[in-house]
Amino acid sequence: MRNKIYICGTGNVATALLLELRRHRVDVAGIFSRGNTSPDDTVPALRYGEAIPEKNSIVFIAVPDRYIIETEKALGGSGYATVHSAGSVGLNELKSDIRGVFYPLQSFSRLMATSWENLPVLIESNDEVLLESLFEIAAAFGTKPIEVDSEQREAIHLAAVFANNFGNAMFLIAQDLVEKAGLSPSILNPLIFQTAGKLRMMNARQAQTGPARRGDARVIAEHLKVLHDDPQLAGIYEGISKYLMTLYKS
Amino acid sequence: MRNKIYICGTGNVATALLLELRRHRVDVAGIFSRGNTSPDDTVPALRYGEAIPEKNSIVFIAVPDRYIIETEKALGGSGYATVHSAGSVGLNELKSDIRGVFYPLQSFSRLMATSWENLPVLIESNDEVLLESLFEIAAAFGTKPIEVDSEQREAIHLAAVFANNFGNAMFLIAQDLVEKAGLSPSILNPLIFQTAGKLRMMNARQAQTGPARRGDARVIAEHLKVLHDDPQLAGIYEGISKYLMTLYKS
Repeated sequence: MRNKIYICGTGNVATALLLELRRHRVDVAGIFSRGNTSPDDTVPALRYGEAIPEKNSIVFIAVPDRYIIETEKALGGSGYATVHSAGSVGLNELKSDIRGVFYPLQSFSRLMATSWENLPVLIESNDEVLLESLFEIAAAFGTKPIEVDSEQREAIHLAAVFANNFGNAMFLIAQDLVEKAGLSPSILNPLIFQTAGKLRMMNARQAQTGPARRGDARVIAEHLKVLHDDPQLAGIYEGISKYLMTLYKS
Repeated sequence: MRNKIYICGTGNVATALLLELRRHRVDVAGIFSRGNTSPDDTVPALRYGEAIPEKNSIVFIAVPDRYIIETEKALGGSGYATVHSAGSVGLNELKSDIRGVFYPLQSFSRLMATSWENLPVLIESNDEVLLESLFEIAAAFGTKPIEVDSEQREAIHLAAVFANNFGNAMFLIAQDLVEKAGLSPSILNPLIFQTAGKLRMMNARQAQTGPARRGDARVIAEHLKVLHDDPQLAGIYEGISKYLMTLYKS
């Protein structure tokens, strides 16, 4: 394993990474942040450009996607490896000679402790030694490390947007409709938990039900009537229904 | 409570209803089905038109939505109450003098035992005595009965389509994308369970994350590039993203 570990960022991924490294008694040499703060008293806060990462160390850049490149630049110095944790940023957008990606397929939140146990972590590097170090860290966390290239990772990031962001968007639209009908959005919870829970038993293609799956044009037409005052929502309803009808016709 | 209970149908809802009634030691006088079969040896199978429901009984019509009206007709006789369990069918599409709706907000499946405990059940009737009987049954099951009118129920059925059918459709699209990238769809499971699980802590509007929520045009453009060979999917991606961007801009 390479010598020292630094983390850039104090957001959800940076904090989750820090906590898990500390839990496994891996020393973190410092946290770089714009505000010069550290989420952990025992780990020093470092300022970009003032402190320089030691040679042969690994610097995890766990900042929002759009700040990754400028964060790497702001570090200064050389001779260390940089590793980002983003789904949508290519390996070679990093400029260090030794670079890697450590992308946990999960949505971290400060409000909910998230287990790394069995979490898929997508790993990529241009350097065999760094690759090995990243696999070691992933294994220490109890995750399922998987080596992928940047193109695969982009496809999986897109899939994660559908599963997480758009899945949640469907729940959001549903909660809004229930509230508009004068009832509490929480009445949808058993249905929502069942929707996800079914995927422990079967894949989503087998789990699919509803008017579009069975080609029930009457119900679809009625729902579009209910949505006539919201063309954007009607468009989403129609788009997904047509997609499902095409899928299950063939 | 009215005298006897019959059930029409042997599908997922009919079976779930039958099992739960039996579990609470409520006698079911018979199961009407086209195939003349009963899912429970202790409950007689009845044939439409041959056996006639007794007066003052309740007949649950738990068949697919499009067969509800013809099923009610096929029963023959009169003097009993008919109750359907569909989200999208109006109360007054039933023709019995005494009619009701008992719509559990859940997706039942033969493969997964579903608890009725705390399940919202949307109830409607044109008759006070039947209404009371339906509330009694719902209470015996440990559910949360809620009285709604047919218009509210249609809005909630639409919401259930978004939450359950379209939520699952997002998981389906995501699993397909991962498979196309050469990896196992199951790598998405922790993310999917977290997506639903978050709603125990906050509503979906607070839980929303992702490129559309933060207005990240670069990532959205890249994802649309990945989807350029599938205009239908690109349309869904764009529709939901625009909807979210409108929502979070205001």
